[in-house]
Amino acid sequence: MEELKKKILEDGYVIGDDILKVDSFINHQIDTALLDKLGKYFSTKFSGVTKILTIEASGIAFGVGVARYYDNIPMVFAKKSKSKTVDMNNVYKTEIKSFTRGVESVVTVSKKYLNKGDNILIVDDFLAEGNASLGLVDLCKQAGANVVGVAIVIEKGFQGGRKKLEDLGIRVESAAIIDHFEDGKVVFK
Amino acid sequence: MEELKKKILEDGYVIGDDILKVDSFINHQIDTALLDKLGKYFSTKFSGVTKILTIEASGIAFGVGVARYYDNIPMVFAKKSKSKTVDMNNVYKTEIKSFTRGVESVVTVSKKYLNKGDNILIVDDFLAEGNASLGLVDLCKQAGANVVGVAIVIEKGFQGGRKKLEDLGIRVESAAIIDHFEDGKVVFK
Repeated sequence: MEELKKKILEDGYVIGDDILKVDSFINHQIDTALLDKLGKYFSTKFSGVTKILTIEASGIAFGVGVARYYDNIPMVFAKKSKSKTVDMNNVYKTEIKSFTRGVESVVTVSKKYLNKGDNILIVDDFLAEGNASLGLVDLCKQAGANVVGVAIVIEKGFQGGRKKLEDLGIRVESAAIIDHFEDGKVVFK
Repeated sequence: MEELKKKILEDGYVIGDDILKVDSFINHQIDTALLDKLGKYFSTKFSGVTKILTIEASGIAFGVGVARYYDNIPMVFAKKSKSKTVDMNNVYKTEIKSFTRGVESVVTVSKKYLNKGDNILIVDDFLAEGNASLGLVDLCKQAGANVVGVAIVIEKGFQGGRKKLEDLGIRVESAAIIDHFEDGKVVFK
């Protein structure tokens, strides 16, 4: 998606060898006009979707943006933390290693909100090694829900996440795919 | 807002003396059609808003829903966790005690995304004792940003949050105000 790529080149910046910061429009301050266009963009890529699944925190905005263009279907976000109000017996659980944070976290979805018969579109802001998306796929499998595909705002094409998903037969669509970083600059695929 | 109250009565449930669970449409699975209506509702209550401020995780969806009806203004969410990609010297910080979790957390916003001249609408899913909203007000004050008001999906009217905000001269609008719980049922104000 050209507008996203332009924005990444203008407002994103690279830290170290492999971290792209897009805090000014994707995952701290959100450009909600761009978000709306991303929602529309993904809705043209997948059909038959009945529910959106994402993961807190920064996936939530994009989940909402996409759900809107499927006639406001329900959007579920998997939770990373244990609140005393979560009944751990009634959730599907999986473990996800965060690429940027370097920690493993337990991620849960209530069994009430993922069901057999759901046609799930998984939405996330980033795809790197694929850990978050694979964790969400695992939650869908536990529920017997069908995964229609994975919609990603920014894919780091050199970190292998896409291949792991495609090897499971899951279609991946990304609005921007980064081929590599060169002298602190983003080079798209 | 009548549609929200109806939904709370139908799909919400009370745990113990003071916790209302609205997981099926507010803070785990999100009813995105209702979200859109809430966004429209709040946009009629406050004018001159140039930026939305909320807090991760469950505030994000409503922040997006509201921003849309102010012509897609930027939406910023304060962060609860420390990622290794956050530069702690360039953030405003405040401490917020979570009512449901009972823990204190450090909440940050990058100094880049809150500025003098911003007219901020603070958005959150719940108002109870007011800790989260007061923390967000504190971040705005540190930045010299103007707080236009606080927009809340569900207010627990008996827990004092509104008074603390109004004592600071801040207008609060809630789409549903709970007066009290009676035999495990919600009674609206």
